Amino acid sequence: MARLAPVPFVDVRLTGAFWSERLGTVLERTIPSQHAKLTEMTILDSLKLPAPPPPLVIKRHANGFSVQVFWDSDVGKWIEAAAYALAHRRDAAIEAQIEAIIDDLAAAQAPDGYLNCWYLCREPENRWTNLRDNHELYNAGHLLEGAVAYFQTTGRRRLLDIMERFLDHIRSQFGPEPGKRRGYCGHPEIELALIKLYRVTGDTKALALASYFVDERGASPHYFDAEAMARGADPAAFTQKTHEYSQSHLPVRQQTKVVGHAVRAMYLYTAMADLAALQDDASLQSACETLWDDLMLTKVYVTGGLGPSASNEGFTRDYDLPNATAYAETCAAVALVFWAQRMLHLDMDGRYADMLETALFNGALVGLSRDGTSYFYANPLESDGTPTRWHWHDCPCCTMNVSRLVASVAGYMISANPDTLAFHLYGGIDTTQTVGGVSTKITESSRYPFDGDIQISIDPAQPADFTLLLRIPGWCRAAAAQVNGQRVAMTLHNGYLAIKRRWQAGDRVSLSLPMQPERIHAHPAVSNNAGRVALQHGPLIYCIEESDHDRAVQMLRLPRNATLTATPSPLFDGIVTLTAPARSYGTDPIPLYMYNDPDLIPATLTAIPYYLWSNRGQGSMLVWIPET
Amino acid sequence: MARLAPVPFVDVRLTGAFWSERLGTVLERTIPSQHAKLTEMTILDSLKLPAPPPPLVIKRHANGFSVQVFWDSDVGKWIEAAAYALAHRRDAAIEAQIEAIIDDLAAAQAPDGYLNCWYLCREPENRWTNLRDNHELYNAGHLLEGAVAYFQTTGRRRLLDIMERFLDHIRSQFGPEPGKRRGYCGHPEIELALIKLYRVTGDTKALALASYFVDERGASPHYFDAEAMARGADPAAFTQKTHEYSQSHLPVRQQTKVVGHAVRAMYLYTAMADLAALQDDASLQSACETLWDDLMLTKVYVTGGLGPSASNEGFTRDYDLPNATAYAETCAAVALVFWAQRMLHLDMDGRYADMLETALFNGALVGLSRDGTSYFYANPLESDGTPTRWHWHDCPCCTMNVSRLVASVAGYMISANPDTLAFHLYGGIDTTQTVGGVSTKITESSRYPFDGDIQISIDPAQPADFTLLLRIPGWCRAAAAQVNGQRVAMTLHNGYLAIKRRWQAGDRVSLSLPMQPERIHAHPAVSNNAGRVALQHGPLIYCIEESDHDRAVQMLRLPRNATLTATPSPLFDGIVTLTAPARSYGTDPIPLYMYNDPDLIPATLTAIPYYLWSNRGQGSMLVWIPET
Repeated sequence: MARLAPVPFVDVRLTGAFWSERLGTVLERTIPSQHAKLTEMTILDSLKLPAPPPPLVIKRHANGFSVQVFWDSDVGKWIEAAAYALAHRRDAAIEAQIEAIIDDLAAAQAPDGYLNCWYLCREPENRWTNLRDNHELYNAGHLLEGAVAYFQTTGRRRLLDIMERFLDHIRSQFGPEPGKRRGYCGHPEIELALIKLYRVTGDTKALALASYFVDERGASPHYFDAEAMARGADPAAFTQKTHEYSQSHLPVRQQTKVVGHAVRAMYLYTAMADLAALQDDASLQSACETLWDDLMLTKVYVTGGLGPSASNEGFTRDYDLPNATAYAETCAAVALVFWAQRMLHLDMDGRYADMLETALFNGALVGLSRDGTSYFYANPLESDGTPTRWHWHDCPCCTMNVSRLVASVAGYMISANPDTLAFHLYGGIDTTQTVGGVSTKITESSRYPFDGDIQISIDPAQPADFTLLLRIPGWCRAAAAQVNGQRVAMTLHNGYLAIKRRWQAGDRVSLSLPMQPERIHAHPAVSNNAGRVALQHGPLIYCIEESDHDRAVQMLRLPRNATLTATPSPLFDGIVTLTAPARSYGTDPIPLYMYNDPDLIPATLTAIPYYLWSNRGQGSMLVWIPET
Repeated sequence: MARLAPVPFVDVRLTGAFWSERLGTVLERTIPSQHAKLTEMTILDSLKLPAPPPPLVIKRHANGFSVQVFWDSDVGKWIEAAAYALAHRRDAAIEAQIEAIIDDLAAAQAPDGYLNCWYLCREPENRWTNLRDNHELYNAGHLLEGAVAYFQTTGRRRLLDIMERFLDHIRSQFGPEPGKRRGYCGHPEIELALIKLYRVTGDTKALALASYFVDERGASPHYFDAEAMARGADPAAFTQKTHEYSQSHLPVRQQTKVVGHAVRAMYLYTAMADLAALQDDASLQSACETLWDDLMLTKVYVTGGLGPSASNEGFTRDYDLPNATAYAETCAAVALVFWAQRMLHLDMDGRYADMLETALFNGALVGLSRDGTSYFYANPLESDGTPTRWHWHDCPCCTMNVSRLVASVAGYMISANPDTLAFHLYGGIDTTQTVGGVSTKITESSRYPFDGDIQISIDPAQPADFTLLLRIPGWCRAAAAQVNGQRVAMTLHNGYLAIKRRWQAGDRVSLSLPMQPERIHAHPAVSNNAGRVALQHGPLIYCIEESDHDRAVQMLRLPRNATLTATPSPLFDGIVTLTAPARSYGTDPIPLYMYNDPDLIPATLTAIPYYLWSNRGQGSMLVWIPET
């Protein structure tokens, strides 16, 4: 069959309680508060190319680098997030803010099409001299993603025109032809933006440029070394020491281990998987699959968080997954959602959708507070109470990454090809798709992710032959389905149930995905998780938080034979908590070391979804709970 | 009773197998190999004040600081270690090497008595301008300790004369009098060196200077800030940010929490405890006791290691005791031995001796390889096989710190006052002390630390009345003692058994300190040790190492009900291993996360003393073993 393609966010309406709340919060609180922060931090002012350039807001590191070089990307991501949210409900004030930004970008763009507010304002003579560090193409990529999303939502293509002029300029500068730079960005991003452009406009030149950047990566002699020498720098004087940091240590098809900066890795692999599908590139697909397996078998947190180390914001050794010091940058989990979605569309294997779902509901969603105005950059799986959410960050990449993901989640729900409609996520949608040649209204309603009872209505304008694919999540042990009250045999292919039939108006599918509390064990090489379990219910990973206990959660022990009970709770407007009779250390002082562990006292353990932690004040938190 | 004083190393001969081996190794292999390294690294050349100054061997940090500023201290510590070892057996070659160094120091010393080879060679105009960072008094302290030890062993006082001239100069520069600097060293050290000088020579001026430095510490306005401004620097531009780093954030008597750089803390507290005893200073003693309790209740590793963090080489939050990333610098455990010994001599409370013993046999001893020529700087309590011992270090402080401790261990065994002789450690000694007014030959023989059967012979030249104090270690559950075959009632006072009687030639005391394998549990706030136990036998903390197992030790689980057996082993010329029937993950590949933990298979767990790990090639290691 033809590969399925995701149904774009603009064509899927979210109707369920879970995502409606998140989307409403992002639209009403996150997007406006982020605009206020972009203003306050003078990021929006920087688009006006103030002369003389004002002093840096964010000091240079010892190595001379200021994260201020990627302010353009923050603007692009904000436009992108806003555009997705506007598809949920249009908002004139936000649209006016976007248009004002586009005015500035139009004015800033150089006559030759070049557009980068850092370079245009501060060092116009240095364009394209430090692709390794300075994010020039990355910024272009994020502005392009913003332009594409805004065009998708509104049909307005002024920003897209600006970016297409910039792309013409970029094409004039980069490529294998004599006289052009054989370079690519230290931070992959533009590649997947170009592919989005291709998907929306069919511009094959965009696809070709993405392909060029991916294929050129890691070629010898190394572009970043040559570029450093060209600007009179020592290539060895590189803070991150190795080109593994940017996944340019080898040509991409020779890469077998997930290394370096986690977000860069995920963005690159996303583009690779996209290209593998769009160009039927078996070698690229194979490289993606090898890297995926490496990530899944040795390097991903149970939350879908990625990258244990702050020093490279990325990967270290296999099984190095510390909890309290986990970096697990929000952006990396967001980017894993991207990659998983692209892998899923290579061959509709539900294991990719399982990971997409895990990263989305846990490692990514945790990055945004319940009220939509504060954030986590790093996402530890244990806290002694020290980390708190923050309202902004010198490097605010995660703020707009999580908002753009949440605002675009409609684009992850379903996929289609001419004779197939596939459900990946549940939670309430409403869409009309032409499938089996017939315009068909489809609704799905459920209390997912808290409940697995799912009702789907299929209403084609006239009877239509097509296959409905329903993802049966890997965590589900006893799924069942009915069509119009008739049981369907649960024969799964790669985690999907296929129902092929002639659909008629009024057809009703009910899918039961029973959720039960699960204990997850980690590979013993993850030494810090020995004797501990993480808790799961449906797609949600749980944690215990001090707010629900009268002491630091590190005092609690979960008996191996204790029954965990899923209990509807009024917390956060209705969630499911997991409770169990547990044991706890008492409150009497105890020494640091002792030959006899004190007797434990009875206690009740209450776990909440991990993504909701740190919304009720400061306190300790634990994902991996010691058993007793 | 009069406070007991340690019997100096020169007066105690080590005769047991355990310390004879270590001392022989230090004398024959460590001291010569360290001299070779000091030569190779041009540290000894630097004493000749080469002109022009050669390029730096150790590059400056970004903040302009080179650890090369404390090369003098390495020389001082090497002389000190060598001097202790020479007390075990004189060696003409080593003595000639020391004399050659003294020649250089004599030639280097300025006419006014000043002696610091970094400043004299490289920046003579900047003496005493950066006490916070540049270790000038610290270097003086280590050279002084070397001079004192060499004088104690050999009676030669040429180096001591040099250092006393330098001290006269220091006294002319520092003090409360008008025109003098009201400063003290960023790295405490000279204080305890001055006290050693006082103990050996009775020089009260030395004691007064030590007292001055301790009392002045942390006074307002802060000396380091004033000093920074005086040299045109911004006091706030301090890499370590807070004066807690050097325990000068508050006057010492107001300090209640153990903070900052671990070695600095221990050296300071050592001097404080020394002064509290020598000057009967109750407020200083009280401060020491408060700090001790803080350390013991919240911050010490089970090995006696100190300081979890590499970034400040020191302390962080209470209960922050990670295993794999433990810094636990060898020097800090060595320095804890110093402090514990001083605390012990305040009031002969065995809990101090217990900690002294733990730090000595575990956290300190681990720093020196079995063959005596390689080292650990950081001492993690878990390894995935990555860390290995090294033969030298840019900052070689730990190398000579562990050798000087091992070589001086005779000085930690016993203490005396006119009518008391106290045993703190066992392991085989031979000494003659005047006690009860009578010259008395005393021998102790045992296979300690592997066996607790201890035989002591007391042979006074004529019958003598005195009290024999025998430390009953805190780990011992069923100690028993006999005098000449007659059982002694085990009435303990602060962990010591007092036997007061008229001793006669031929008296024999036998002390039985039965050792059994113990499981140690940690306070639950040390989250990473939840569900785990450390193993102990006698004073030794054990670990499991890959060499004794056919897989990474992280695969092993120790059943809670498994019997641990202490077994004599031929390893390392005879040690005791601990073995237990255990469980292990198998060798089939397993996923990173799973709902059902795989069945474990039977295995045998073999633990060796922690101090011996990493002497049989690279491999994984674990102190805190998960139970099942």
